Amino acid sequence: MSKGLVVLAYSGGLDTSCILLWLKEQGYDVIAFLANIGQDEDFDAAQKKAEKLGAKKVFIEDLRSEFVQEFIWPAVQANAVYEDRYLLGTSIARPCIARRQVQIARQERAQYVSHGATGKGNDQVRFELTCYALYPQIIAPWRIPEFYSRFRGRKDLMEYAENHAPSDLYQMTKNPEDSPSEPDVLEIDFAKGVPVRVTHVKEGTSKDTPLELFCYLNEIGGKHGVGRIDIVENRFIGMKSRGIYETPGGTVLLHAHLDIETFTMDREVRKIKQSLGIKFSELIYNGFWYSPECEFVRHCIDKSQENVEGRVQLSVFKGQVYILGRESPKSLYNEELVSMDVQGDYDPCDASGFIKINAVRLREHNRLQGATQKKL
Amino acid sequence: MSKGLVVLAYSGGLDTSCILLWLKEQGYDVIAFLANIGQDEDFDAAQKKAEKLGAKKVFIEDLRSEFVQEFIWPAVQANAVYEDRYLLGTSIARPCIARRQVQIARQERAQYVSHGATGKGNDQVRFELTCYALYPQIIAPWRIPEFYSRFRGRKDLMEYAENHAPSDLYQMTKNPEDSPSEPDVLEIDFAKGVPVRVTHVKEGTSKDTPLELFCYLNEIGGKHGVGRIDIVENRFIGMKSRGIYETPGGTVLLHAHLDIETFTMDREVRKIKQSLGIKFSELIYNGFWYSPECEFVRHCIDKSQENVEGRVQLSVFKGQVYILGRESPKSLYNEELVSMDVQGDYDPCDASGFIKINAVRLREHNRLQGATQKKL
Amino acid sequence: MSKGLVVLAYSGGLDTSCILLWLKEQGYDVIAFLANIGQDEDFDAAQKKAEKLGAKKVFIEDLRSEFVQEFIWPAVQANAVYEDRYLLGTSIARPCIARRQVQIARQERAQYVSHGATGKGNDQVRFELTCYALYPQIIAPWRIPEFYSRFRGRKDLMEYAENHAPSDLYQMTKNPEDSPSEPDVLEIDFAKGVPVRVTHVKEGTSKDTPLELFCYLNEIGGKHGVGRIDIVENRFIGMKSRGIYETPGGTVLLHAHLDIETFTMDREVRKIKQSLGIKFSELIYNGFWYSPECEFVRHCIDKSQENVEGRVQLSVFKGQVYILGRESPKSLYNEELVSMDVQGDYDPCDASGFIKINAVRLREHNRLQGATQKKL
Amino acid sequence: MSKGLVVLAYSGGLDTSCILLWLKEQGYDVIAFLANIGQDEDFDAAQKKAEKLGAKKVFIEDLRSEFVQEFIWPAVQANAVYEDRYLLGTSIARPCIARRQVQIARQERAQYVSHGATGKGNDQVRFELTCYALYPQIIAPWRIPEFYSRFRGRKDLMEYAENHAPSDLYQMTKNPEDSPSEPDVLEIDFAKGVPVRVTHVKEGTSKDTPLELFCYLNEIGGKHGVGRIDIVENRFIGMKSRGIYETPGGTVLLHAHLDIETFTMDREVRKIKQSLGIKFSELIYNGFWYSPECEFVRHCIDKSQENVEGRVQLSVFKGQVYILGRESPKSLYNEELVSMDVQGDYDPCDASGFIKINAVRLREHNRLQGATQKKL
Repeated sequence: MSKGLVVLAYSGGLDTSCILLWLKEQGYDVIAFLANIGQDEDFDAAQKKAEKLGAKKVFIEDLRSEFVQEFIWPAVQANAVYEDRYLLGTSIARPCIARRQVQIARQERAQYVSHGATGKGNDQVRFELTCYALYPQIIAPWRIPEFYSRFRGRKDLMEYAENHAPSDLYQMTKNPEDSPSEPDVLEIDFAKGVPVRVTHVKEGTSKDTPLELFCYLNEIGGKHGVGRIDIVENRFIGMKSRGIYETPGGTVLLHAHLDIETFTMDREVRKIKQSLGIKFSELIYNGFWYSPECEFVRHCIDKSQENVEGRVQLSVFKGQVYILGRESPKSLYNEELVSMDVQGDYDPCDASGFIKINAVRLREHNRLQGATQKKL
Repeated sequence: MSKGLVVLAYSGGLDTSCILLWLKEQGYDVIAFLANIGQDEDFDAAQKKAEKLGAKKVFIEDLRSEFVQEFIWPAVQANAVYEDRYLLGTSIARPCIARRQVQIARQERAQYVSHGATGKGNDQVRFELTCYALYPQIIAPWRIPEFYSRFRGRKDLMEYAENHAPSDLYQMTKNPEDSPSEPDVLEIDFAKGVPVRVTHVKEGTSKDTPLELFCYLNEIGGKHGVGRIDIVENRFIGMKSRGIYETPGGTVLLHAHLDIETFTMDREVRKIKQSLGIKFSELIYNGFWYSPECEFVRHCIDKSQENVEGRVQLSVFKGQVYILGRESPKSLYNEELVSMDVQGDYDPCDASGFIKINAVRLREHNRLQGATQKKL
Repeated sequence: MSKGLVVLAYSGGLDTSCILLWLKEQGYDVIAFLANIGQDEDFDAAQKKAEKLGAKKVFIEDLRSEFVQEFIWPAVQANAVYEDRYLLGTSIARPCIARRQVQIARQERAQYVSHGATGKGNDQVRFELTCYALYPQIIAPWRIPEFYSRFRGRKDLMEYAENHAPSDLYQMTKNPEDSPSEPDVLEIDFAKGVPVRVTHVKEGTSKDTPLELFCYLNEIGGKHGVGRIDIVENRFIGMKSRGIYETPGGTVLLHAHLDIETFTMDREVRKIKQSLGIKFSELIYNGFWYSPECEFVRHCIDKSQENVEGRVQLSVFKGQVYILGRESPKSLYNEELVSMDVQGDYDPCDASGFIKINAVRLREHNRLQGATQKKL
Repeated sequence: MSKGLVVLAYSGGLDTSCILLWLKEQGYDVIAFLANIGQDEDFDAAQKKAEKLGAKKVFIEDLRSEFVQEFIWPAVQANAVYEDRYLLGTSIARPCIARRQVQIARQERAQYVSHGATGKGNDQVRFELTCYALYPQIIAPWRIPEFYSRFRGRKDLMEYAENHAPSDLYQMTKNPEDSPSEPDVLEIDFAKGVPVRVTHVKEGTSKDTPLELFCYLNEIGGKHGVGRIDIVENRFIGMKSRGIYETPGGTVLLHAHLDIETFTMDREVRKIKQSLGIKFSELIYNGFWYSPECEFVRHCIDKSQENVEGRVQLSVFKGQVYILGRESPKSLYNEELVSMDVQGDYDPCDASGFIKINAVRLREHNRLQGATQKKL
């Protein structure tokens, strides 16, 4: 008799294939679920493989559009970067995949969900916090001693599992040394802080659905070797690990969004929003997408983006993104006000008072320190 | 009879030359003070010019070493970046220059200090807050109506004054399109969060005094077109302005320091320090170097750097800095702990408890939202 | 011929009466505007006085309801407290008064608004930032040398003006030493973070319009001497000043709101909201109610209050507010979960994993410090 | 043969007595360790009881002085308050007790430490994070199924264990309704942010060692019913719990320290320090006293206290602490500067410029919103 039905997040690779087999061996029925979030994968082959391994059903789901719109776009609005450097690619995918997996589990009346994330990584947390937020029962074989003590020694499985750091590390981006010696110049239009159109200036082509737009930026960014990093990062579970990442499209969008945001957002709103963005990045990284605080922060960040609208022109070249210019109907940049030729609605004498009042506190401090000299 | 003695921050250019003449015309005696903080300038010619214009004395002071050690190094420790992009080059120079100017004013028993910063910019604030913190009397001609209404129309002067954005914009950095097609690979050694040696791996040469080291990074960074930005930024006085900056050496150091810092600093210390660094950047930008809060923040950041020590290897190429690796006797990276082959002093089962306890709050939230489904 | 029409914020007292006269003397026509925000004032007498002094028109406006709902309620939601102690009473009134004054100026086609706030205080800033945000032309006599050099010597005027610290300091609150020796027990019902009803448990009476409710809390709080403070605070213009305040109703609401908020709000949302509340308090104090950042923060705080609903029972006695209990349909307090008798949906063993994973980082830190001892 | 030697944090009560017996039953040798941190306890009786139950050794250690100086004083400097209300009494005691317990374990060459904290509370975390930071092996019976499933049903034990909320709730504080109808007036002298002397003004007595001083404030505060709260709080493990606390001395010190700090500390330093204090409070509550981030924050807060020096006069009455006045050689309060009679070194006209420049940003915002009306 079956111990129950499990929906397994299946990757098509060796590790989750082992898990599929092991779950069956343990007496479970298994549904394999493979999410397409844009990775390079032969989904047909994976389907056949899962069936051959004994999956009762196989779900292959194209989540690319919802991944871009519901997960990547909020990260763009937030300028989400973890620890000043990591653009959070896979971290953002986890709640998207787990949400669908829970939906399938409910629909198929499965008792369990399962995944192949290891016991020392972040993905187990990201996966399971989403599940616990939405659905209770999880089987995590890599934390089950009978499983990991049996498979730990298996060199071939291990090698695959380690493929978070595959030998051919970069799959989306060219080596900048081998990238074209001519830049591509793009224009990205934003509305409410998300990109709504990208145009290749020279070729005159443009993309305007979220998925196409994002894929196109990945393609152009990748072609020019944009967005590669080799970092040490702090995992949620308290250890430091080395990560090698590539985020070509995300890097282009980060530069463009930072630019249009500063152009259209009040300075003090920007400061508050910046700290919310840092918090948001940490929440994503740690797996708290589906948490009350993350919902709250997302709402606030979204609110801040109301006027983040306009066009950024940029060039992509040899691993770099250069902002060339920007324009916006919501611009707070006032050429007349800032000009040195025109006085505009601004009296330079006011700056004297501004500075002196700002100095009141500093002078009091120095008075006390005995450091201020009297008028000579 | 003289109205008093003024120490003027003299640049050698047309604008402060006009100010020098105007101050004399107004009845002041003028001492010209020209600080060498590494800019490209013919100091002899400037000295002669100032003398010819009637300066009573001319002080030309080489502040480069103290600028690097006392001002740039703390900014490196802080990963100082204003509004996510601006590396604060000139902002950091102001308090260094103004401090020396006040010293000269005291020593020469001058009644006033004066400068050529305009009435709409940040530099007037940076200059004067330093002065008010250290010394009281300032003459700011660009905010004196008789001065600015007289000179505002003068196209030639204006053009010079506008040279914050000179026609040949970039002076330190090559255009990445024209930069070498071979990277340079450097190793930078840090101790207490500041660079103590830079080595060119292939050439085997190295620099280890602060000034030489920083100049060398400017040279290598500049050769490869590193650190150019075109941004809109928020001035302290409340307007947005466009800025075009180049910070080759600073950009190399920012990447290297971020890397060695994350390698050697505890995650939670890093978070707290990150927010102090953001505060510090804002204080520098707004001109509050000499303020009690900036002294406090500098102290705290310096404290955080005690273990930031080690060597970063990086490559500089076509406008980009790529981290290649890092090593440190103070590393908190524990290969065994993070390895998937070795269990180390870590039980994967603990992660289950960790995740479940982290989920308690999320489940309570969902319980209230009525969203959690019962076991099927 | 008239120099133009001025709408003066008139208090009925000596200082703004002097200003009224002086403005007329200077050649302006003056409209006197007196806002009723709940202060103890003979409005009829003030009206007659203003007319007698030559005001062209007198507007006496009851702003109490909008003051409570649009200004005090958001401060309650925010737990607004400046520098850990000051509950921001008058600071919140300024934007409310200035907003109406600007409306009158527009409606009456006045060219100017004017006020009697002194040149060293916060109120000038609060008043004028509101005006600049809404309307441009301001006359501030206390910063006009001809005015203040003329009136500064006048002991009687000065004495009045100093009445921010009147001899009979407290007007709303009894001295706790003389207050009743029996507590009053109240129940306050909240919805979306604002009070919607207050009930006197023993007397069975209740109030449920915002204005009545707030006045009632002022009355009960005042009767028991609640909300008196004597503090030194930091003014926006950089000096420290002493302030003596009484906020009886506000203090009762702060305690009650803190309690129901913690009861119904997720811990992590609370943390983020707490820092927004501190920011909000600073913005109010400094006069930035009508600023993009304050609008943004108000929106975010309001969002956080969606589930802040329920009833708090408290006792008011001898200057203190004691929380007696709370209940809420949105409570996140789960008696079963927290009970020591019932295990509930919680496995204590999970706590071991939680603690051990939290300790991973600490142990790594100690490993490096060489402080961890080996197993004995 | 013994399974090893355990140092048990023994309270003298029923729960840890059960644990002592159970550990012996399981085959361990047990050393009982009872810390005196000022609680009301018959230590001799406890010693005898532990011996009778079979403890191999009993350590009774007076930690009161180090508890006050090394743990409470830093909390006073920080104005440590968790979630705006809880003064962290017991939370601060845990690392002090655990540190000594680890020292004893090392000295006695014990393999294990053990404690009686339950599996749903904060104390287990506070205790064990300290231990993991200093020493590795912990036995937590309340998380061991054989233990808690055996004892959970035992009504008597449970009742004792529940005594975190004993029937006679308050032990240190009188009910304010029954407290004296005469206030006591105290003067507290601070140096570097910690109290160095307390004087009873009327009686002329004073205390100046940390322990005596703190005990005296507990006594006076307790006599007047100061520092009682009934709150719901958020535990680190994710659940909300109700807590009833009394912190008489801590409450007096919080009020006094807040006052002298604002008097002597620069406004902007205060803001930064305030957020560090909030972080510090959270770290203490969650059990991270011995963590790199807590060490860092403590260092920074201590640095901020350099000038926090002076005398606060206050009255304690009917549950309240009223600040009566303060004086300090390091005061930043400048009576002349703030006076309305004397202009001092301050030109009111500067405030116009200050306000106008602060308004630049607001006017730009309104310009864009189309809200600013032209001059009429």
